[in-house]
Amino acid sequence: MTEADLATIYKTGQPFKLCCGAVLPELEIAYETWGELNAGRDNAILIEHAFSGSAHAAAGASGRPGWWDSMIGPGKAFDTDKYFVICANVLGGCSGTTGPASTDPATGKPWGLSFPTVSIRDMIEVQRLLLSHLGISRLKCIAGGSMGGMQTLQFVGDYPGFCDSFIAIAATIKHSAQQIAFNEVGRRAIMADPRWNDGAYYDAVPPEGGLSVARMIGHITYLSEQMMQDKFGRARKGDASLLSPSFEVQHYLDHQGLKFVRRFDANTYLYITHALDNFDLAGDLSGQERSRGEGRARGQDLDQLAGVKGLVISFSSDWLYPPDQGREIVKLLSRLGASVSYTEILSDHGHDSFLTDVESQTKIIKGFLESL
Amino acid sequence: MTEADLATIYKTGQPFKLCCGAVLPELEIAYETWGELNAGRDNAILIEHAFSGSAHAAAGASGRPGWWDSMIGPGKAFDTDKYFVICANVLGGCSGTTGPASTDPATGKPWGLSFPTVSIRDMIEVQRLLLSHLGISRLKCIAGGSMGGMQTLQFVGDYPGFCDSFIAIAATIKHSAQQIAFNEVGRRAIMADPRWNDGAYYDAVPPEGGLSVARMIGHITYLSEQMMQDKFGRARKGDASLLSPSFEVQHYLDHQGLKFVRRFDANTYLYITHALDNFDLAGDLSGQERSRGEGRARGQDLDQLAGVKGLVISFSSDWLYPPDQGREIVKLLSRLGASVSYTEILSDHGHDSFLTDVESQTKIIKGFLESL
Repeated sequence: MTEADLATIYKTGQPFKLCCGAVLPELEIAYETWGELNAGRDNAILIEHAFSGSAHAAAGASGRPGWWDSMIGPGKAFDTDKYFVICANVLGGCSGTTGPASTDPATGKPWGLSFPTVSIRDMIEVQRLLLSHLGISRLKCIAGGSMGGMQTLQFVGDYPGFCDSFIAIAATIKHSAQQIAFNEVGRRAIMADPRWNDGAYYDAVPPEGGLSVARMIGHITYLSEQMMQDKFGRARKGDASLLSPSFEVQHYLDHQGLKFVRRFDANTYLYITHALDNFDLAGDLSGQERSRGEGRARGQDLDQLAGVKGLVISFSSDWLYPPDQGREIVKLLSRLGASVSYTEILSDHGHDSFLTDVESQTKIIKGFLESL
Repeated sequence: MTEADLATIYKTGQPFKLCCGAVLPELEIAYETWGELNAGRDNAILIEHAFSGSAHAAAGASGRPGWWDSMIGPGKAFDTDKYFVICANVLGGCSGTTGPASTDPATGKPWGLSFPTVSIRDMIEVQRLLLSHLGISRLKCIAGGSMGGMQTLQFVGDYPGFCDSFIAIAATIKHSAQQIAFNEVGRRAIMADPRWNDGAYYDAVPPEGGLSVARMIGHITYLSEQMMQDKFGRARKGDASLLSPSFEVQHYLDHQGLKFVRRFDANTYLYITHALDNFDLAGDLSGQERSRGEGRARGQDLDQLAGVKGLVISFSSDWLYPPDQGREIVKLLSRLGASVSYTEILSDHGHDSFLTDVESQTKIIKGFLESL
């Protein structure tokens, strides 16, 4: 059973128009929920997943651990005794929501590279459709780490009147040159694999070599230098030879690469990193700011940001989305009128802290949600 | 004309035994020299090249720029009016010295993966043979940056009585887990390319895709995050599409990858990164320390380090071989008796500073050499 099998599929029954102008003739959204929507329908929290995540954020009744189990559940940071928690797989993903591996109804074959280019804004538009389907017209909170934080920010920027609050963790308002560079190397590794075959590999062996290299690069950026050193140092396992790993860190990366290719789609890797690199909240919102009062094509008026409370969390050892970028989020959204608080958590676990640093995050997030 | 064509080839005419126990039936060493050896034969400086370098450190009469032109020449840091400067391509390399692309005399075909595993110590043993051929029994100085710094340290550790002084720049006494991890991803990128064909690609198209990805990863680590941001930021060139680069940093990496595959051998990449990851000066010298007075198999007595003057240079923005690792070099060699001074140069250029930061390095190195 895959994580997609655990999700509920909402078929919108409508075509979906993307920012790039293309139209998907049909759209399926894979989602899960935990807890109960109250009578006032005002206790919903939307959780946004990170790059390689899925709708399966918490185990719930399935018994299969979710990617944020430590944070979602009865009595946890996102307390399912109080809140109705929702998480959906992103557009372009590979865990149930329509993406490049889905079937193009026009051809009966997987989309592959004929799938339209996806943006972070498209992802949140899809989630808006899901919320509407669930009868939710206002969120208590929207929250996520890493790419989940970027979706959170896009949602709040586009629909400030829809959210009481937001929590953006280990995120940024836009990628730096180095962040684009790391993604580019991952993409190149996939495209350099002949099995990638211009994205048409769904009836053959997928480009596992390239995808696994891409994931290895990712993993280096997810861990802090210090944590890697403490965990692996120069420890060895097995004999050293030119081609087979002998350092434990080599085995670790190898394992991460292999684990990833069993559950992730190489084309999704290309589409979603492209969306990440092109995400630019500052540019986007300043465009909206300029058009204040001129009637905007999308979303709601930025003035409504004044009613939104925000929490931004960064981790001291996160060198992928470092604290500087967290402070930039605060600056931008405060300038636009939101009430944003900022916490830098002292942690050795690098970017992965948003998944592993449960205690500090729980305390801060619980306090924030209770204060609303 | 390649850089190998500019070098002089010294054929030792003898088999060469490596640390791994294997014996190369023949050995060729590609080297260049600048300046004149004086009558006392005591003005020789050996320059060690970095990972992707060659013997062509300076233009000399060739007119073709060398990789350290800014530092080697009349009146420069390594002043060829005063010193006899030598640089040789490393064992296992691909610019003239015997390596995996060389012909195995037993088969008449390229060695490929049957080439024996190379260590940093093997590299300096080869250079000792060259120095002996040139009639040099003592070096005024041995110097290098990055992998050149590691060879420098190995040379001084093994033959302290052979060197008046050493200069190790942007180097380390051993790789951290993160440094091994970056190299591992590069190796995996090459091996994932089917054209690599277990190292037997010399009569076909080489694994350019994999090698180019490996080089891209390297380039990210050579530049500081800040420098990348200042140089490229989010600037774009051309239209954005899913598969063709539109950010300038993508074009830059692409260009670096393509440039590299035209001049570098993929198997050499595997052999030399393996040597780098397995380099461990501290472990090595503490073994030698333990055997002081017990008669050592190799090299000279560590007591002679007391007569050696050292200079260690790190760069503030170098995150590949950060200043902490420079200070470790100083600690280790000072403890063993050498007189080592340390300078951290404030620079924005990351690891590449050893190639680009000419002014500060020149001042410091000139002063150091004149003080001897």
